[in-house]
Amino acid sequence: MAEPRVSSIDGKLAEEFAAPSQVDEVRERMTAFARLHAEAGRCVVLITSGGTKVPLESRTVRFLDNFSSGRRGAQSAEYFLDAGYAVVFLHRHRSLYPYARTFSSINVLDALQFSGGDQDRVVVNPQVLPNIAKVLKKYQEVTASQLLLPVEFSTLSDYLHLLKASAQALSSIGSKAMFYLAAAVSDFYIPACDMPEHKIQSSNGPLQLSLKMVPKILSPLVIDWAPRAFVISFKLETDAAILLEKARQALDTYRHQVVVANVLDSRRGHVVVVTPTSQHEVVLSKEDVDNQVEIEEKIVTNLTAAHKHFIGQQVG
Amino acid sequence: MAEPRVSSIDGKLAEEFAAPSQVDEVRERMTAFARLHAEAGRCVVLITSGGTKVPLESRTVRFLDNFSSGRRGAQSAEYFLDAGYAVVFLHRHRSLYPYARTFSSINVLDALQFSGGDQDRVVVNPQVLPNIAKVLKKYQEVTASQLLLPVEFSTLSDYLHLLKASAQALSSIGSKAMFYLAAAVSDFYIPACDMPEHKIQSSNGPLQLSLKMVPKILSPLVIDWAPRAFVISFKLETDAAILLEKARQALDTYRHQVVVANVLDSRRGHVVVVTPTSQHEVVLSKEDVDNQVEIEEKIVTNLTAAHKHFIGQQVG
Repeated sequence: MAEPRVSSIDGKLAEEFAAPSQVDEVRERMTAFARLHAEAGRCVVLITSGGTKVPLESRTVRFLDNFSSGRRGAQSAEYFLDAGYAVVFLHRHRSLYPYARTFSSINVLDALQFSGGDQDRVVVNPQVLPNIAKVLKKYQEVTASQLLLPVEFSTLSDYLHLLKASAQALSSIGSKAMFYLAAAVSDFYIPACDMPEHKIQSSNGPLQLSLKMVPKILSPLVIDWAPRAFVISFKLETDAAILLEKARQALDTYRHQVVVANVLDSRRGHVVVVTPTSQHEVVLSKEDVDNQVEIEEKIVTNLTAAHKHFIGQQVG
Repeated sequence: MAEPRVSSIDGKLAEEFAAPSQVDEVRERMTAFARLHAEAGRCVVLITSGGTKVPLESRTVRFLDNFSSGRRGAQSAEYFLDAGYAVVFLHRHRSLYPYARTFSSINVLDALQFSGGDQDRVVVNPQVLPNIAKVLKKYQEVTASQLLLPVEFSTLSDYLHLLKASAQALSSIGSKAMFYLAAAVSDFYIPACDMPEHKIQSSNGPLQLSLKMVPKILSPLVIDWAPRAFVISFKLETDAAILLEKARQALDTYRHQVVVANVLDSRRGHVVVVTPTSQHEVVLSKEDVDNQVEIEEKIVTNLTAAHKHFIGQQVG
C-alpha cells in the first residue's frame, strides 16, 4: 500500500469537514494542560473513545454510527491515571466516562434510598453499589488534581478536527505524549456538498447512499502534527483470520509504534499488542476473570512500559 | 396513496426481520400487565421511545441510526402516570428513562459527596440535584405500584417484533389501550440476506449502500392487531412547509386517531395535534418556559381527554 499523501489529507480535512466552533479554545486548553503536566514530570496520554456519528442530512435526523460503548477508553483512562499519566479524554458525547462507568448498567434511582425516616435526605445504597465510596474518592482526587481533561465529540467532523488540535497541542511535549486511539472511527462519510438539507423522504422510494472514504488521519498525525509522540492505534475486526495481517499493514503504512489488535467477540478477554518488531498476546486468565481484573489494566501496563522504553531511546 | 396490503406487511416482518429471542416472554408479561390494570379500571398506554438501529453487517460494527435521545417518550411516560395510566415503556436501550432522565445531563459523581467526615457514607448533594427527593419518591411509588413496565429494543427488527407483540397484548383491553408511537423508527433497512457477515473493509474503496423501505407497520397495527385501540403516531420533519400535509396524509393512509406533528428545531416548544376533523396547536408560552413547564405535560393532557372521549363513543 502506498503511503498516503499527507498534504492532501490535511487539505481535505479543511475543505470537506466542518470544524466545530470550539476547536481553537479546546486546542489552547489542551496545550496548557500538556505543558503544565510535562513540567511536573508527567507523561500525557490522549485517549480517544466511543464511535463517530456520520450525518446523512445537513439538518440531521439520520446518521451512520459505529458500535462502541466507550468502555475500553473509559476503563483505560482510569489505569493511565493510576500509572501517573495526565489524561486528555476525547470521547463521544454520552459514551462511557471514567469512574462514572460504574453506574452504566443500572438505573441510578435503584441505587438511591431515603436516609432513615428522613424524606429529604437521599443516600446511596451501598448494597447496590458496594464500591461507590472507593470510586467517588478516586474521582474526587483526580478532579482535584486536574489530571483528567474531558473533551467531547459527536460527529466524525468534530472528531477529526479535535484530534488534529490535540496532536498540535501535545506535540510541544515531544516523546512524553502518548496517543491511544481507541475510538471507533467511521471509514466512510458523505461530503457536506452531497448531503440533502432536509430529512430524506421515504415516499421517494428505496435509498441509495454513496459514501466516500474518510482520509487516513493517522498519516499526518505521525508525520506532521506530533512526529515525536508514541502512537497506538486499535484494529477491530470480526474475522480473526485477517486481523494480524491488517495490524501489520497499518504499522507498515503509518509508521507508528503500536497496533492493539482485537476481534469483536473476544475483545474483553484477548488482544494482541503488535509492534514493528514484536507481537504480544494480552489475555485474561480464568483467575483474572474471577478476580474481576479488566484487560485494560494489562494493556496499559504493557504500553506504559513500552512508552518508557521509547522515551529512553529518544533521549539516548 | 394506496392503502398498504396488510397481509404482505405481516409476511415481510416474519421473513426479513429476525425476531428477538425474548419476544414470546415479553408478550406474556405485557398481556398480564394490561389485564391487571384494565381490571383495576385503568387505561394502559404503550409508549415507544428512542431511535432504532439498522445494522449494516451481520456481526455488527456499523449501523444506521435515527436521532433521538428519548426525551419526549420518557417525559410523556411521567405525565401519563400522573394521569392515572399504566405505562408499557418500549424504549431504545440506554435512551432516556422516566425519572432517571433527571440525571441525563450531569455526571452523577458530581452530585455525590461524603457525609460529614465519614468516608464510607455517600449521599446526594441536594445543591446539585435540588429535586432529587421528589423524583425518588415518585419513582419508588411507581415501582411499588407496578404501574410502569419497561421493555428494551436496540435494532429495527427488535422494535418491529416487540411492537407487534405489544399490540397483540393490549388488544385484549380494547379501547382502553392507547398507542403513543414516539420512537424515531428508520424508514430504510438492509435485509439480512443482503448483508455481509463481516465488517465492511475500507480497503475495498467507497461504499455503496442500497436500502429497502421498511414495511409500514402502522397498517396492520390499526387494522389487525389492535383494531379498537386509540392510536397516536408522530411526524417529525425538518421542513415546516410539508409537515401538516404529511400529517394529513398519514391519517388518510392509516386511519388512526391522531398525528402529533413537529419540526426538529422547535419540537420542545411547539407541536400540532392533528386528527381527521381537527388541528390543535400546543405551544409553550414564555411564562411556561420560565416555570419549567414541559410541552409533554400539555400534549398528554390533550390526548388523555381525547382518549376519554373516544372510549365514551365506543361504549355509546
